[in-house]
Amino acid sequence: MSAPTDASAQRALSTFQSTLSDPFTNAVINAMSPETPERARVVLTSLIRHLHSFARDVNLLHPEWLLGVNTLNRAGQMSNDARNEGILVSDVLGLEALVDQITQDAMTSMAEGAAKEATLSCILGPFFRENAPLYQNGTDIVQKHSEGDEKLRTFMDGHIYDAETGKPIADAEVDLWHTNPNGLYEQQDPEQPEYNNRGKFKTDANGYYSLECLCPTSYPIPYDGPAGDMLKLMGRHPMRPAHIHIMVRKPGYATLTTQIYDRRDPYTLDDSVFAVKDSLIVDFKETEKKGVAYELTYDITLAKAKDL
Amino acid sequence: MSAPTDASAQRALSTFQSTLSDPFTNAVINAMSPETPERARVVLTSLIRHLHSFARDVNLLHPEWLLGVNTLNRAGQMSNDARNEGILVSDVLGLEALVDQITQDAMTSMAEGAAKEATLSCILGPFFRENAPLYQNGTDIVQKHSEGDEKLRTFMDGHIYDAETGKPIADAEVDLWHTNPNGLYEQQDPEQPEYNNRGKFKTDANGYYSLECLCPTSYPIPYDGPAGDMLKLMGRHPMRPAHIHIMVRKPGYATLTTQIYDRRDPYTLDDSVFAVKDSLIVDFKETEKKGVAYELTYDITLAKAKDL
Repeated sequence: MSAPTDASAQRALSTFQSTLSDPFTNAVINAMSPETPERARVVLTSLIRHLHSFARDVNLLHPEWLLGVNTLNRAGQMSNDARNEGILVSDVLGLEALVDQITQDAMTSMAEGAAKEATLSCILGPFFRENAPLYQNGTDIVQKHSEGDEKLRTFMDGHIYDAETGKPIADAEVDLWHTNPNGLYEQQDPEQPEYNNRGKFKTDANGYYSLECLCPTSYPIPYDGPAGDMLKLMGRHPMRPAHIHIMVRKPGYATLTTQIYDRRDPYTLDDSVFAVKDSLIVDFKETEKKGVAYELTYDITLAKAKDL
Repeated sequence: MSAPTDASAQRALSTFQSTLSDPFTNAVINAMSPETPERARVVLTSLIRHLHSFARDVNLLHPEWLLGVNTLNRAGQMSNDARNEGILVSDVLGLEALVDQITQDAMTSMAEGAAKEATLSCILGPFFRENAPLYQNGTDIVQKHSEGDEKLRTFMDGHIYDAETGKPIADAEVDLWHTNPNGLYEQQDPEQPEYNNRGKFKTDANGYYSLECLCPTSYPIPYDGPAGDMLKLMGRHPMRPAHIHIMVRKPGYATLTTQIYDRRDPYTLDDSVFAVKDSLIVDFKETEKKGVAYELTYDITLAKAKDL
């Protein structure tokens, strides 16, 4: 090979000669067009800086990088309508719990002297499904009861309030989903009917909702994919404390996505996805109420959506 | 909902109340078992810190995070034996070029007073395939010539040297691959035979290799997936300068993965994946040699693999 001439050496961008220094990272960032939407520019600039800084900090080797890329590819290949392995990978690194808190802080607007504190949010998780059936208040969301689950049957109710005024919110949509006693969501389990243990309810004129469900069951997050491999590598268990997912939607308010945890579950102290917050831990109370073993009252307070 | 008792409030880990502060990130890192292999602990600790720091720096919102996760999932779903979209996503952010340079610096051992400088590495890219056919020196790697490609036919040869001694290396394996004149690699193009424009050669006793190939063609990286979407968002073109991929393997030496670039191609100044280095830019020389239009001599110098 002939040596490059001086002219050609000048032609090539000098920044590309110093891959290991910040000028290389700056060259990648500066390749963005001035027409890049501002939010995309901000997010991608920070992402590129942190990715490059991570690679330099640990002297990331090509086989390690390729293992990472192929791990993410495999997560995508395992994902479908019923499972989102990319979310699980993110969750075991605490990223969704962090982003969830950032989002609640950013999206909600709390007036000075608000009457009530807004209920804290919690991660969506990979098992949410849109279009759960809309039921009348009081309906049991368990479409197929399993043997022995009468000990878990629960009457749940509560009110939805406006944080600013403290008044109840009528016609709010309360969407709930939880595991079956075998620890599986319906889309993980061919024995369960479609949308088993899922349902939407509308609050009445008094902001009241009610339903029947089950005490939820602690379960391992799916352990047969990249998220499971990462947990094994880190010597961590895959267990999540028993919880009920709740999403409350009402135009004009910030949509609340949260989870409530059964205080009796020891994994509330050691959640594989770092999502538990004190104020989301609840007590299932034994009851004489007909047809159920427990009752649980859970009131939820919504903040107004911030004008962004 | 009843307020948590003081005892229960104490039970829950206080770190989880401060998701937005470093204690939360530390809690995620500290969840790793003491038995975590040291390299995994170092890499994952830095990865978690940078991911969390990125999310905090830009106030990453949940819908933005989910868009990112689902973009990576989609990259995985588009990936198969013939395409690695995860690599492309990484490449348009400059990450593979950076990791490639880190790796060459980390894996090669250059003695003081080495006779020659080692040839610089370059990214592998997503189109490498193992098990290309092994040919005799001088063989044409183009299995199916297309109309008009006689103007691109090239005789390529060179020697493989040992950086430390400056002496030729016999029996080194030289693996080459390049695009067809239509800008497509064989696995992207049903009209090309399997392993078209790919071949392996062994250096003879003098460290010499030779083959026939084509002047490579500049091409857009695949633009129909997440990597293409990111380029569009950043207002960037997808073009790569024309290049020939080369991988040289010989036990005892660090495997060299590199690319050589045609100096006539203007994209050497503006590569969509930031991989061009000055010393990898070469001149295709017009020739009177029978059956070809150009000749190209490219000598390669290998460094010893570092004992890690």
